[in-house]
Amino acid sequence: MSAPSLSSPSAPIGVFDSGIGGLTVVAELRRALPHEQILYVGDTARVPYGGKSAETVTRYSREISDLLVSEGAKMIVVACNTASALAVPSIALDYPVPMIGVLEPGAAAAVKATRSGKIGVIGTRATIASEAYKKAIRRLNPLLSVDAIACPLLVPLIEEGLLHDEITEAVLRRYLSPMLEKGIDTLVLGCTHYPLLKQAIRSICGSDIALVDSAENCALAVQELLKSNPSEESADSSPRLDILLTDSSEGFLRIAEKSLGLSIESLAVRRVGN
Amino acid sequence: MSAPSLSSPSAPIGVFDSGIGGLTVVAELRRALPHEQILYVGDTARVPYGGKSAETVTRYSREISDLLVSEGAKMIVVACNTASALAVPSIALDYPVPMIGVLEPGAAAAVKATRSGKIGVIGTRATIASEAYKKAIRRLNPLLSVDAIACPLLVPLIEEGLLHDEITEAVLRRYLSPMLEKGIDTLVLGCTHYPLLKQAIRSICGSDIALVDSAENCALAVQELLKSNPSEESADSSPRLDILLTDSSEGFLRIAEKSLGLSIESLAVRRVGN
Repeated sequence: MSAPSLSSPSAPIGVFDSGIGGLTVVAELRRALPHEQILYVGDTARVPYGGKSAETVTRYSREISDLLVSEGAKMIVVACNTASALAVPSIALDYPVPMIGVLEPGAAAAVKATRSGKIGVIGTRATIASEAYKKAIRRLNPLLSVDAIACPLLVPLIEEGLLHDEITEAVLRRYLSPMLEKGIDTLVLGCTHYPLLKQAIRSICGSDIALVDSAENCALAVQELLKSNPSEESADSSPRLDILLTDSSEGFLRIAEKSLGLSIESLAVRRVGN
Repeated sequence: MSAPSLSSPSAPIGVFDSGIGGLTVVAELRRALPHEQILYVGDTARVPYGGKSAETVTRYSREISDLLVSEGAKMIVVACNTASALAVPSIALDYPVPMIGVLEPGAAAAVKATRSGKIGVIGTRATIASEAYKKAIRRLNPLLSVDAIACPLLVPLIEEGLLHDEITEAVLRRYLSPMLEKGIDTLVLGCTHYPLLKQAIRSICGSDIALVDSAENCALAVQELLKSNPSEESADSSPRLDILLTDSSEGFLRIAEKSLGLSIESLAVRRVGN
């Protein structure tokens, strides 16, 4: 099978997540690639993915990827750590365009950042159970120690907008304390929701610990891919952000516009699967 | 259209919820009707329903109800407040067996319990936004005052098993304080997950406030329905609890057996819809 090629320079970059978390990736893509059109799909009818099985997450990821390709996306950015961990390895080669997950770029950045060799990873229950980060980091350097913990309450707290709140801080403190005691010097935010808590996490971790933001590193990987195919770069003067959701979602626009400063050209609801 | 009739005395009572919450209803049914077979469906592939739209919750409820009827259920107990509020009114008459939600029995019990005429209701975002409890209570007594608040963090905390935890207490205190200050004397636990927090809620509310448990009142309504059709009652000496989930779920058995003391005959995963 030959490597998939980007389809058309004026085609949008396709991005998907189970819900709003992937918007942190969109915000980073906007910064890194200001001229690109973006088509974002949020699977709000079935959100969250983080506690579901590999089989179910793979089925959902396939349905959303099919939709992005049918809408003309020139690549698929899987802006969801759970789908990147559970689905990307088994479905990436089935598509005619490149598929980039958030996991490998985040793992590479963590390996680059650590000095002590002790890396912490936080993520959803499914991401952590898959051990995908641990494996990706160890593939790059088998000598590194990886301490991973599932933080299932963070996504609901973020979806409720409690970004600067004493309850969120208490929850974070409980999740992070054991890792901090073990002396990690690098923490991977292994869920695309988590960059929204960066400030709260920073206040608990202190300034000596490197925070690896999977959204930021995923955007850099997309930028690299486009640079290596310069004819595929878009030079639109008025780039669009179009959003499809699988269920209507009240909180979506609020987070997109207020917390991330994104401006949205169109937002529609489209049924996917059942 | 004639009223639906119960199909067969040896057929199971069908019960469904988005996930584990409805097991509190199963526990109450077991207590009230020890001889009945129960078939429970948990839609764990699409859990939770509480933040989703009426259209989507109705579609999911219809698919699960179709499954229960095809499996021979003699009635459908909608052990989910969100589905009871958003879907039951529009789909109940489409089925050949009776459909009982948790909402009307809970509203009736609250009206019976209040002395001061000030009732509080807690539930998911979708249940509260529907105003279904407020309307059901006011239909029974238009003079009562109803104060309803969405508590979207409680389900994730319960699913994490933090039933007796200072974080859960802090969250509960924040949700409940404004209602308590307004002088409610009755609190409707308008989500089938919430009875698992009864002890924590009681410690915050004190002993003067009546807690209306939607699981308990729903079981009583089912008991009434069976009493009014005595030929349909089952007298099985070895009643079964069979469970179908739409996605494999690690936490399910733990909660069912440990927190609720349920014994399960069979547990299988069955794909529903997509």
